Order: sequence, then C-alpha cells, then structure tokens
Amino acid sequence: MDRIKPRTLSGFMELLPRRQVQFDRMVEILRKTYALYGFTPLDTPAIEASEVLLAKGGGETEKQIYRFTKGGPDLPLRFDLTVPLAKYVALHSGELTFPFRRFQIGKVYRGERAQRGRFREFYQADIDVIGDGNLDIVNEAEIPSIIYQTFTALGLKRFQIRLNNRKILNGLFALLGLKEHAGDVMRTIDKLEKIGPEKVKAALGEDFGVPAATAEELLTLLSTAEPMAALAGYRGRNALLDQGVEELSTVVQYLSAFGVPQDHYKVDLTIARGLDYYTGTVYETAMLDHPEIGSICSGGRYDNLAEYYTSKQLPGVGISIGLTRLFFVLEDQKYLNEDLLTAPADVLVLPMTEDLSPAISLATRLRAAGIRTQLYTEHKKFKQKIGYADKLGIPYVVFLGEDEIQSGQAAVKDMATGEQLTQSAEEAIARIRAGLAQRNAGAPIQDRQ
Amino acid sequence: MDRIKPRTLSGFMELLPRRQVQFDRMVEILRKTYALYGFTPLDTPAIEASEVLLAKGGGETEKQIYRFTKGGPDLPLRFDLTVPLAKYVALHSGELTFPFRRFQIGKVYRGERAQRGRFREFYQADIDVIGDGNLDIVNEAEIPSIIYQTFTALGLKRFQIRLNNRKILNGLFALLGLKEHAGDVMRTIDKLEKIGPEKVKAALGEDFGVPAATAEELLTLLSTAEPMAALAGYRGRNALLDQGVEELSTVVQYLSAFGVPQDHYKVDLTIARGLDYYTGTVYETAMLDHPEIGSICSGGRYDNLAEYYTSKQLPGVGISIGLTRLFFVLEDQKYLNEDLLTAPADVLVLPMTEDLSPAISLATRLRAAGIRTQLYTEHKKFKQKIGYADKLGIPYVVFLGEDEIQSGQAAVKDMATGEQLTQSAEEAIARIRAGLAQRNAGAPIQDRQ
Repeated sequence: MDRIKPRTLSGFMELLPRRQVQFDRMVEILRKTYALYGFTPLDTPAIEASEVLLAKGGGETEKQIYRFTKGGPDLPLRFDLTVPLAKYVALHSGELTFPFRRFQIGKVYRGERAQRGRFREFYQADIDVIGDGNLDIVNEAEIPSIIYQTFTALGLKRFQIRLNNRKILNGLFALLGLKEHAGDVMRTIDKLEKIGPEKVKAALGEDFGVPAATAEELLTLLSTAEPMAALAGYRGRNALLDQGVEELSTVVQYLSAFGVPQDHYKVDLTIARGLDYYTGTVYETAMLDHPEIGSICSGGRYDNLAEYYTSKQLPGVGISIGLTRLFFVLEDQKYLNEDLLTAPADVLVLPMTEDLSPAISLATRLRAAGIRTQLYTEHKKFKQKIGYADKLGIPYVVFLGEDEIQSGQAAVKDMATGEQLTQSAEEAIARIRAGLAQRNAGAPIQDRQ
Repeated sequence: MDRIKPRTLSGFMELLPRRQVQFDRMVEILRKTYALYGFTPLDTPAIEASEVLLAKGGGETEKQIYRFTKGGPDLPLRFDLTVPLAKYVALHSGELTFPFRRFQIGKVYRGERAQRGRFREFYQADIDVIGDGNLDIVNEAEIPSIIYQTFTALGLKRFQIRLNNRKILNGLFALLGLKEHAGDVMRTIDKLEKIGPEKVKAALGEDFGVPAATAEELLTLLSTAEPMAALAGYRGRNALLDQGVEELSTVVQYLSAFGVPQDHYKVDLTIARGLDYYTGTVYETAMLDHPEIGSICSGGRYDNLAEYYTSKQLPGVGISIGLTRLFFVLEDQKYLNEDLLTAPADVLVLPMTEDLSPAISLATRLRAAGIRTQLYTEHKKFKQKIGYADKLGIPYVVFLGEDEIQSGQAAVKDMATGEQLTQSAEEAIARIRAGLAQRNAGAPIQDRQ
C-alpha cells in the first residue's frame, strides 16, 4: 500500500498531550477570569460572508486572508475576532442588552510568511465592552485591571501595562501642524521602539515634511519620564489634547482603586497602536524580561465598532491576547510550570484478577469522587503496566489482587514517593485528593520574582 | 457611508448569549466526563495538507470538503476529527504512550446542502482509545459506559445505546454466500430503519442477486427480539461469526459491571455503521422519544486507524457526538433546562455615590469569593439600571449609597424574590453563594421521566 507521509502544515501549532494540557489550563484561567468580571462567552463561525468580512476593505490584512469557493461565492476565514463581533452586534443588536460585555477565545487565520513563532492559525482571547451610544470612562480603567488580574492569575509577575490616549496624540499633531498626516505620523511613532528615535525623526521629515524642530519637540515630549507633568505645559492650547489628558488622568486615578499596583502600569505617550479605529485610551502590555516579543495584550477604546454595518453608534473598549504566540514564547523561554500535573489521569487501576468487576467498581467509585481514573486492562507484563503510569506521569497506581478484594481494600502506590499503602476506598480517596491538591497548587506560568 | 448588510452564512450556527452559555455548559460537562475516564484533551489544526486529509480518497465526503489556495497548494478544512487523529498518532507515535486515550471537541466543516438542522460548520466531540498492535476487548465495553455516563451527566434519560459487532455481520454474509458484496450489503442493511425491510429485501435481490430466501433468512435473524439466542443456532458454522458472537457476549457481560442499566442498552444486529473501517463492536445511540433524528452518538472498533500514513498496526475504539446538531435538536424539542443561570454575572453592583472606590472594593471582594460581579457605572436613570439586571437575568443587585458605605454594609436585592437586605460583605457573600448553588443545581438537559 502506498502511504502518505503524515505532516502538519507549517505555521499551525499542534501540541503534544502534555503541552496541550498546559495550554488548556491557561485557557481555563482566562475563561474564569473574564467571567468573574461579567463577560459572557461568545462563539462565532470561523467562516464569514466575504462582503461582511471585507466591509472595511484594503489594508495589510486582506492579503493574508484565506479565501476559498465552495459551490458559490468566495468564503473567507476570519482573521481576527473584532470584525465578527462587529457583525454580531450589528446583526443581533435588537436582542442584546447594552453595555454588552463578551469574551471570545477562538482560532483566527492569517496567511503570514512562515517563520519561527509566527502562526497562520492562532487563538485570540478577546474581551470587549460595547455601549449603545455612550460608554462610561470607568470601563477604560477597568480593562487594565482585568489585564492585571488575568496575567497575575496565569502566574506572570514581571509585566507592565502601558497606557496612552489617542486624543493626546491627535491633539498634539494638530497643535504641531501635522493634522493632515495624523494617521501616517501615528504609524511612524508606533515604530519608535522598533527603529529608534533617529530613524523616526528622519522618516517624519522625509516622508511628511515635518520640520526638524517640530519632530524634536514631539519626540522629546513623547519620551519624557514624567509625561503627565510635561503635558500640563500644553494645557489650554488644543481642546482635543485637553480632553485626552483629562481622560488619561481619570483612568490612571481609577487604576489604583481597581487594585493595579503602581509598578505594573505606566503612562507611555509613544504607544499609538496601528489600528485606525482606536479613538481614546490605548493599551499595550510588555513582558519586562522580554521586550523583544512586543505586546502580549493590546487594545483600546473605539467610538464606532460597527460603522460598516449599521448607523447605530456603538462605542466600546476591548483587548486581545494572542494566545498561541504567547504560549509559544512562554514555552520557548521556559516559563511553563512543569511541576503541575499534566497526566491524562490521576489514578491508574491495575486489576490483578481474572474477574474485572471489583476493579471496575473501584474505578467507578473514584470517578464519583472526582478523581480521574483509568482502568488498565491490556495484557502486558507487570513492569510494562507500571511503566505506562510512569511514562504518562500518572501520580497514583492502584493494585487490586485477590487479597485486597477479600479485605475490601486496595494497594495504593504514590508514584513520586514510592510509598505503597493498603487502604480502604475512603482512605485512598482522601490520600489521593490531598496529594492532587498539592500537585495542582500553583499557576501555569512560573515567573522570576 | 455605504453600509454592508450584516449576516451570518446559512448552515453556520451562531448563538445568542443565553444559548451560548447553555451550549458551553454542555461542552464543559463533556470535557469533565471524558477527563474522568483518563482521556487527554487534544487540539489539531482546522486546516491540513490536502494529501494528508485526502489520503483515503474518494467517497461522499470529498465532495463536501472546503478547499482553498493561499499562495501554494490547496488547503482543505477538516471534515471530521478522525482523520486528523490518524495523522497525529502516525506523526507523533514515537512521543505517545499507548494505549493513547484522547478526547477532542472541535469544529469540522462540510459543504452540505443547506437545510434546517444541517450544519456546514459543526462541533464534534470525540473520544478514542488507540492501542499499539493490540487493544483489549474491555475497552469496547467501557466506551458504552462512557456514553451512558455522558448523557446522564447532561441530564438525558430516555436514550438507548445499541450495539452490534461487524464480525457477526461479515460472518453471516460469508455463510449466506454474500461475501463478495459484503460492503454493499452492509450499506443496504444500514438503511433498514430508514427504508423498511421490504425495500431492503428488494434492493438485496435486484442489486446484488441475493436469493429471496437468503434475504428473508438474513432479515429475520437481524430483526429478531432475542438476537443472542438466535445467533446461538449459527454456532460452529463460521469462525468469524463465532468470534463476533463471543466478542459481543463479552461486551454485554461487562456492561452491567460498568453500571449501565439494562434498559439503556440493547443488542441490535441491524446496526451496521456505514463507515468501512469498523471491524468489531459498533455503537449507535437513539433518543427514545425522537427516533427520527437518528443516532446522537456513534462509533465502534477499528483495526487500523492510520493505515494510510504508517505501517504501524493501530487498533482502536471510539465514538463521536455531533454536538451542534444535538444542541439544535435539544433546543428545537424544548429539552434545554431554562431554569439554570445564563446571566453574564451573578451580581450587578450599582454605586450610588460620586466616588466609586467603595463599589470597586466591594466588587473586588465578591470576585475574590468566586462571585461573577459586574460594576455598572453608566449614567442612566435608576429604573434603567435595575432594568439592565432584569433583562440579563442577573440574580442579585447590590446598591451602595452613602448610608451603606458609612455602616460598612451594602443593600443586596434578590431579583427573583424582591427581598432586599442590608448586609455586611460576608453576609452578602454567604447569601449569594447559597442562592447561586440552588439556581445552578440541575443538568443542562431536562428530560421527561
């Protein structure tokens, strides 16, 4: 028989069981944290009508969309979770209650050039709060507190949330006579960390005719260590700038009420976010020991979520975590807590008698107590059976022979310590539960402190 | 501005928030139940290399595959979770431990003709146990016990698991001189419930030249009320048939040890399962009050999971639930338990003072106690704020005014009873927890009994 060589496409993450458990544990923490803040889970199709998905049109992303035809019009795969959200809210607005708070964790697709750590299929984990006409500024302060809670729950410690407000940038640009190039200047500023101030200054001058002195003033202000103090000097000169400064002050002021420690956030006027649709507060999140990987959680405030689909004014604020890439980095940089249980079962039951009924009953009893139990019935040598538990990292093995069955007990071996005790089912359950609680304590990420 | 009409493609399920919570609750129960039996979670790409996905080639499914090109070879979307599993196991066999037990709950794609209750994107929830060279028959008895546990945990009561063994059918075919048409005869038998015995008999005669008496004998045997007794009369006439009868007896014998009640399973010799690759026990699961929807969980034993990719002999046994269709039917037939909480939050905190800090602190405290809490800060009239909780079905509303803050208490209203109490945070947490436990008791499916 001619065989096909099995392979997984490059740019598509496929994890071995142990890693998958670690990934799923992170997803579970995200779901739980988002739910604690009153976000409802959402799931939308991976395929959308092309005119819907491409309503905004143009741009870099369009080139990366996977499109195909199947007996009709072309059908593209979603490239983010924001466009499907906009469609969802516009389509179902009559049946939703606003502010509408949703989280969505799902796969998105981009035909990027394949390279290490870049994925063509990847999970995004998004939250958004959408208002109907209005949305209070407090939401813009709550979002970074959720970022803080989320990464803290995951076990990350050395991270910093960076905040800015697009009104400040747009106000400054207007003040410095750069209004007509605002978008381009914003995108150039966004590259500051990547290409450095000199190249940005040069680009501003060459590409948009910004005078050297203006570029100098702009970059000095943006990079100052005390941005709020520096901005005070511009007060009263531009309404938009004033509004941005006020919003940013309000957000920062609430941050401590929301319990975000001072060393976990910073106002950074160089944060611009490339996307056009942000209009207020913007966020990025840096891993302090790995600035090279860029922002691990970004987002911001927008005035019009679904303008391409509806005349309804739907302002909102949201963030997105690129989960697949984050997981790749965490594994690559040895951040994953390898002590946590990744075995498919907590207990392996090894029947030592012909009649399996007592083993099946015990397994049923353990499962009823919430203990993940596998019955092992393959015809192998004893050593191979134990080796199975060992290879998979199953923490407890239960032997059930004639003697144990007669006495209504079981021989329960702790695979880590080697300690084997003959116990009743209740004793075994208590011992196993205590051991599991200990082994499962701790977060999925192990960060330096 | 020209606007695009928002729409979701037909054949793609998109749920409103309340329904999504119900769907997710079912997924959560499946994950938990599968995990209790020692299955490890797996996730594989939705897109696979075309030569990998189509290794088996031909068939009905190939016409339904979504394929597209993106700067290179064509890339098809998976149409089930079995082919990706075969690839996964063949590709990673050196890094897996056998028997390999995995569950996977994920979206698959089929370009079916759009009709009510048929989906082009749908979730499958699969479990499989894969052996390396061998796999004990006990696994074939454990699988229906997992089906039983799963549906019972979901709240379904009126269902029945139907079992057969392909060796019995193939042995009978050989005995009756139908060996060379075995596959075709099997597929014809499979239609028995759909088209009735007369049409099956006619088809067997016309299409494969089966004599009328033979067809009669076959159908009489297959439809008998006491199949095991009837099969006893065939003992010793065909080795394959004998083996099939012995396997089926063993599986049935273990079923009661595994705790499956007698009225929840039945040997049914007409169960054939269309798929070629089953070689032993096969399963279907019927909703007793809705036979018209067909099997809600099917599967069986196969000898060779990955023969298209590897010379390794990988026998296994598995089942699949078509979750999206099942959910559609459950909703359509009013099986969903509408009493369970589907609100995005357990508590809505309404600050009544300018300073939000006390409200933020209380919300933080509630969340630390595991209570899903939303802070409501929009500038609306009091009635609208209460209406927000009401519309979303949020069970508790907390008012925090000057008086409450002064006394270190909060006014906590139970929205269902209308009872409003001024309580300390600890009292409120205890009361809310007790109320939530009551509201969340019960399964997602409410079946007649």
